[in-house]
Amino acid sequence: KMLRRVLCTVLFVGALPSLAEVSQGHISVVLLGATGDLAKKYLWQGLFQLYMDQVSSGHSFTFHGAALTALEPGQRLMFDVLKKLACPPDESPNRCAVLKDQFLKLSQYHQLKTAENYTVLNREIETLLRQEGLKEAGRIFYFSVPPFAYTEIARHINSSCRPPPGAWLRVVLEKPFGHDLESAQQLAAELTSFFREEEMYRVDHYLGKQAVAHILPFRDQNRQFLDPIWNRHHVERVEIVLKETVDAKGRVSFYEQYGVIRDVLQNHLTEALMFLTMELPANVSRAEEVLQCKLQAFQSLRGLEKTSAVLGQYQAYASQVQEELQKAQDYISTTPTFAGVLIHSDNLRWEGVPFLLTSGKALDERVGYVRVLFKNRAYCTQSETLRDAGHSQCKAKQIVFYIGHGALNTPAVLVSRNLFRPVMPEGSWREAVGQPDLHIFGQPLSDYYVYSPVKERDAYSVLISNIYHGRKDFFITTENLLASWGFWTPLLDSISDQPLRLYPGGVENQHLLDFEMVSGEVAFTLAEPVELLNPSRLTPSDYKTIQSKFRQSPLVSAWSEDLISQLASDIEKAASRTVARSGQFHLALSGGSSPVVLFQRLARHHYAFPWKQTHIWLVDERCVPLTDTESNFFSLHKHLLQSVRVPYFNIHPMPVHLNQRLCVEEDRGTELYAKEIMALVPNASFDLVLLGLGTDGHTASLFPHSENGLEGAQTVVLTESPVKPHQRMSLSLPLINKARQVFVLVLGRGKHDITTLLSRVGHEPRKWPASGVSPSSGRLVWYVDYEALLG
Amino acid sequence: KMLRRVLCTVLFVGALPSLAEVSQGHISVVLLGATGDLAKKYLWQGLFQLYMDQVSSGHSFTFHGAALTALEPGQRLMFDVLKKLACPPDESPNRCAVLKDQFLKLSQYHQLKTAENYTVLNREIETLLRQEGLKEAGRIFYFSVPPFAYTEIARHINSSCRPPPGAWLRVVLEKPFGHDLESAQQLAAELTSFFREEEMYRVDHYLGKQAVAHILPFRDQNRQFLDPIWNRHHVERVEIVLKETVDAKGRVSFYEQYGVIRDVLQNHLTEALMFLTMELPANVSRAEEVLQCKLQAFQSLRGLEKTSAVLGQYQAYASQVQEELQKAQDYISTTPTFAGVLIHSDNLRWEGVPFLLTSGKALDERVGYVRVLFKNRAYCTQSETLRDAGHSQCKAKQIVFYIGHGALNTPAVLVSRNLFRPVMPEGSWREAVGQPDLHIFGQPLSDYYVYSPVKERDAYSVLISNIYHGRKDFFITTENLLASWGFWTPLLDSISDQPLRLYPGGVENQHLLDFEMVSGEVAFTLAEPVELLNPSRLTPSDYKTIQSKFRQSPLVSAWSEDLISQLASDIEKAASRTVARSGQFHLALSGGSSPVVLFQRLARHHYAFPWKQTHIWLVDERCVPLTDTESNFFSLHKHLLQSVRVPYFNIHPMPVHLNQRLCVEEDRGTELYAKEIMALVPNASFDLVLLGLGTDGHTASLFPHSENGLEGAQTVVLTESPVKPHQRMSLSLPLINKARQVFVLVLGRGKHDITTLLSRVGHEPRKWPASGVSPSSGRLVWYVDYEALLG
Repeated sequence: KMLRRVLCTVLFVGALPSLAEVSQGHISVVLLGATGDLAKKYLWQGLFQLYMDQVSSGHSFTFHGAALTALEPGQRLMFDVLKKLACPPDESPNRCAVLKDQFLKLSQYHQLKTAENYTVLNREIETLLRQEGLKEAGRIFYFSVPPFAYTEIARHINSSCRPPPGAWLRVVLEKPFGHDLESAQQLAAELTSFFREEEMYRVDHYLGKQAVAHILPFRDQNRQFLDPIWNRHHVERVEIVLKETVDAKGRVSFYEQYGVIRDVLQNHLTEALMFLTMELPANVSRAEEVLQCKLQAFQSLRGLEKTSAVLGQYQAYASQVQEELQKAQDYISTTPTFAGVLIHSDNLRWEGVPFLLTSGKALDERVGYVRVLFKNRAYCTQSETLRDAGHSQCKAKQIVFYIGHGALNTPAVLVSRNLFRPVMPEGSWREAVGQPDLHIFGQPLSDYYVYSPVKERDAYSVLISNIYHGRKDFFITTENLLASWGFWTPLLDSISDQPLRLYPGGVENQHLLDFEMVSGEVAFTLAEPVELLNPSRLTPSDYKTIQSKFRQSPLVSAWSEDLISQLASDIEKAASRTVARSGQFHLALSGGSSPVVLFQRLARHHYAFPWKQTHIWLVDERCVPLTDTESNFFSLHKHLLQSVRVPYFNIHPMPVHLNQRLCVEEDRGTELYAKEIMALVPNASFDLVLLGLGTDGHTASLFPHSENGLEGAQTVVLTESPVKPHQRMSLSLPLINKARQVFVLVLGRGKHDITTLLSRVGHEPRKWPASGVSPSSGRLVWYVDYEALLG
Repeated sequence: KMLRRVLCTVLFVGALPSLAEVSQGHISVVLLGATGDLAKKYLWQGLFQLYMDQVSSGHSFTFHGAALTALEPGQRLMFDVLKKLACPPDESPNRCAVLKDQFLKLSQYHQLKTAENYTVLNREIETLLRQEGLKEAGRIFYFSVPPFAYTEIARHINSSCRPPPGAWLRVVLEKPFGHDLESAQQLAAELTSFFREEEMYRVDHYLGKQAVAHILPFRDQNRQFLDPIWNRHHVERVEIVLKETVDAKGRVSFYEQYGVIRDVLQNHLTEALMFLTMELPANVSRAEEVLQCKLQAFQSLRGLEKTSAVLGQYQAYASQVQEELQKAQDYISTTPTFAGVLIHSDNLRWEGVPFLLTSGKALDERVGYVRVLFKNRAYCTQSETLRDAGHSQCKAKQIVFYIGHGALNTPAVLVSRNLFRPVMPEGSWREAVGQPDLHIFGQPLSDYYVYSPVKERDAYSVLISNIYHGRKDFFITTENLLASWGFWTPLLDSISDQPLRLYPGGVENQHLLDFEMVSGEVAFTLAEPVELLNPSRLTPSDYKTIQSKFRQSPLVSAWSEDLISQLASDIEKAASRTVARSGQFHLALSGGSSPVVLFQRLARHHYAFPWKQTHIWLVDERCVPLTDTESNFFSLHKHLLQSVRVPYFNIHPMPVHLNQRLCVEEDRGTELYAKEIMALVPNASFDLVLLGLGTDGHTASLFPHSENGLEGAQTVVLTESPVKPHQRMSLSLPLINKARQVFVLVLGRGKHDITTLLSRVGHEPRKWPASGVSPSSGRLVWYVDYEALLG
């Protein structure tokens, strides 16, 4: 009865909706965790804002707070919160007071604990709607509860609280959504068993920050200016930064499981990154298009390596962990509280542009921003001291989405005046008249066009409004979530035992956390003197590369990553020396999975490699077309050749595909390749042959007991593999043994047995072809990682 | 007699040479133009300095001033100059006074006008040497005379004044050494008929500037620091600048023939550029190695285009020209007094790094410098306002060779303190204690390590000393000179009718001469409002691209450069649209010379071209190996493919070279190519075919009256060309006519007749194969430049 009165009252307040609009229907909002911190701080206020904004929309509303607490104390707790709801400064106090009164009357508390409770809630909603003669528009369930409670609540909602057909269901989920790819997949699978994709609204509150939310509209509205410059030719670098002064004190039990990358980078900063790098859809207000482009942007990200990040931990964290988690004195936490990560997109637009994501606790200031710094392409003829300050093209050019706090202490969009005057939506952003002598990113504020929001809204208000409007592009879809975890998980895995740089916290940090980019890697700038927080257990980098003997030949051994970088350097050295001597370098490369990491390393870290003088040959090939993903050449092309500049004429794939058929003897592909080698490689002696090793002792595509290639005069042969695709082409052992250098790369625990065996047997190529690798006058080096060597 | 006394006296002055050292022999220095401006201002002082420095070297000297003036007045004029010779501050006044007295006694004036005069001079030198019992070490002839006098003097010296065998001859030449490649070649050829290369010392006095002369030693002595950073990965840009405040007043008759590029850029700034970009020889003190590396650096320079330069002329120049050259009021000089030029080196070390050479008269300040600006690779976590000023890696990093004048007013080498503390030769450079609050290139002087020379020496002193020491690497060899003119002449030719920006001069210029780099071109930053100085005759850019009809198909016509850029854009548009529609773009390209410019344009200016989705096919090929420079594919590779990223699989050269033989029918190359087209190109209908036109009306490699390819079902054919190499492979006319679009490119006056003829005839492919180009359902566009169209 009370409710009826309120619902009717509502119709006579403010701008009155017509009855047609009223018939938009009723929306029930259920806030689970109604008395928790987040609800108290943001969510109720956001719901009240929604009510104020939408009271005239034609929808009617009821708000249901829910928690595990019993009815009476829960009700009291909740209404204590509601009474404190604030009126926004841009609202008339009278209207707000009336609306607040109504909002309180439309709100109810429910204990939601058992399945029964959910059935009752559902029945109450149905009854109310029937009594009031209202059509149901939809229901919003906002999960402001710990993640372990998700599954049960979801099950109850799905089985008892679904609205009738024609009305929508929207469930709003708060992070964390897993802590790595696997757990996120698991959680997503569970939720998917209860809700359809379009019903789920995963919140990343950064998407509600006004400056972040405006990145896409800004790019859209300023296409004319940005089209020519929003690319690698003009952008020098992008910084996406969230710095905090607070530390993790009081939240260590949470923080210790997550750390800064899971807490901030994987979600907030990555989302901002996507808004910057994604291709702009034709229509930025169509959620599906936006989500599609965003997903494509994820696919262009280059995989992270251990060396893509610098990590730190503030000094007080150790004692906080000991205290809050009751750990022993010698317990060492490896949780980073600071991270700087270098990200590259392989999209043509962004190739080579560094995206630096940085966040940390206990830093010098609280601030968040996305900064796009453009290259200085100008030369100013007049001397700096003699020219007008005003319009110089030689001043830095930047676009900054200032998220908040910091020197400006407001969300803002800044565009350097020597770039362009941006188009901004008049109703919602206005030019700010700030302190002109304030310096932001090295320049006085007067060097920028500065815009700030007409109404400052907190992120949750923005997001709740977007839930109401069904704007799914403001939320994290399952695909989006898994793409992000898919991107971050390899880094998280590889850094789990990385040393952390200790920092004192606050302004004391000084230059301790500065870092630099070198050849696609990042490293702290100050190398010494610094305490490293080294986990007690042994880490790969503690081992030195071992130099020893294997089968009477030099052996290089290390953890696989160090081994690969050593091998890559050795290959480059060989190449440079050979080119200096003879003007060219004939390199024969094997297929298989081990060399892929090597190819990537060569492509990304060896800029001085004399590719122009290098001839690339294949050691072996599968009988599939070259463009087949199974082809060795395809893999070589994908991971190496497309990134470097080997002249077309110097690339020599094996002719497995002739006359539209594969490895048919009478097409004489082996003969063709042999002739090409004879014609181009002096004495048919390759400068360097890179081999692998199979678990059965095969090398190249020379398998045990092969009829061809283990001996005899034939230099290129067709062979049979025991595994698919069976047909192969391969260099023969005699040809391989003519090489000036042969490197054999052996990686992984799976190769331990054959490695052990090979270390003991003699020259028995028919049994173990790899034992026949023995250059007649060249040099043989084994590169075997610890896992293969030691098991 | 007098001379004997002096020569003996010399032996007892200063640090006494041993007799063994005295036996180093005698050197005669002949200064031609002994009473001219350069001699008065620098050369005599330089010779005196040489004498002071080398008096104890074991060599004895005589100095012969020469001019056209008769003996008596000439003698008087010359000794007036000699009496004023200054003692350097670092020399003891007593020693200097004694040496000056000796120097005067060792100096003689000669009138050198007739062949007879030269014979007499030679006889005098011989007589003196005989009388004094001195062995002759060598003779230096310094040409400080106008260039028109060179040949005659050279002839006299060669025929009458050569020293006897065992002694050397060094002739020193002052610029100008020609005004373009042809005139420089001519002058060089003349000189070469009189002197051997090792006898010629061409002066570029910039090589004697202490800061310029120290570039190579600096690079050598700081290899450890520079090796990792002296490359495109670390250098953001290089600026080589010589600004003057004076204008050309009083020198217009000279200046009007040369202009700023010939006067300063072709020589001084280019030499500095070479010292920066050349590979460092193992031993920088070996002149031949240095000269060799320098020559290689020239070969790596990317050719200049019209758009590589911005040009200006100070406003007062026009009236100065009218006044000093007695020109009419409406005479317009097109001589630039300001130039900014963007240079790229295609050496792998420097690929993509912009080198900006700038010089001008009537600018805001007098200053010369070479500035290497490094990329900022650092992220400084601490906010700018909260961190120590001292050691930030985020400050600009630069190395500056400060040539002189400007704010520092001394030669200097500056290295940012956050880079490294340079190694400097202790005896000759010392750390400078300057004004710490002086700002140089945006940073306080205290941010740099600053070194200046212990003794400031003017360029001529340095050079005269280097002539004495035979250091040829301080001079311009013939090869070096011709390489430089070969590099600059195409730009000079192409800008001869370019509009010039007028500038008021001095600090009034403000931002008028600022320029920017965009896609490998430069342009003034301020587009408007500016008066352009446009030569009265019609220039290419005054024509708009004409759109009309040719043979019932659309015709695009313009001057060739504009036409090529239009065609390149049209191809890119077609590519983007086709890729958007079908995911791939099949482009068939013709060989020949016309497309080369197009290929270069596509490679250098079309970054957004969807190369990754483009398939490249050949329209025709010569029956030579693909790596032959005559091969169409080789040219395509060289000018386009090696600069862009077309996947290996998408590149389809014609199989003219099979089984180690060329275009043999039974190898069935045509069939192979036809099958490849059938397999990959939907409906065998290329998205775009680019054709050329021969003077005989041929197109592709389809020649008049060809038996193959003009009709019939065969899609790829072997044909015969009337010119070498005769054998060709070509797409057939029926296949070409299946394309979705066909563009025909026709360039140059040589094509005017056939163009005119083709505009009149009908469909007669047997007579004129090009007349058979008529896509059955596709679009045909003719791109014909004005020269071909209008003759």
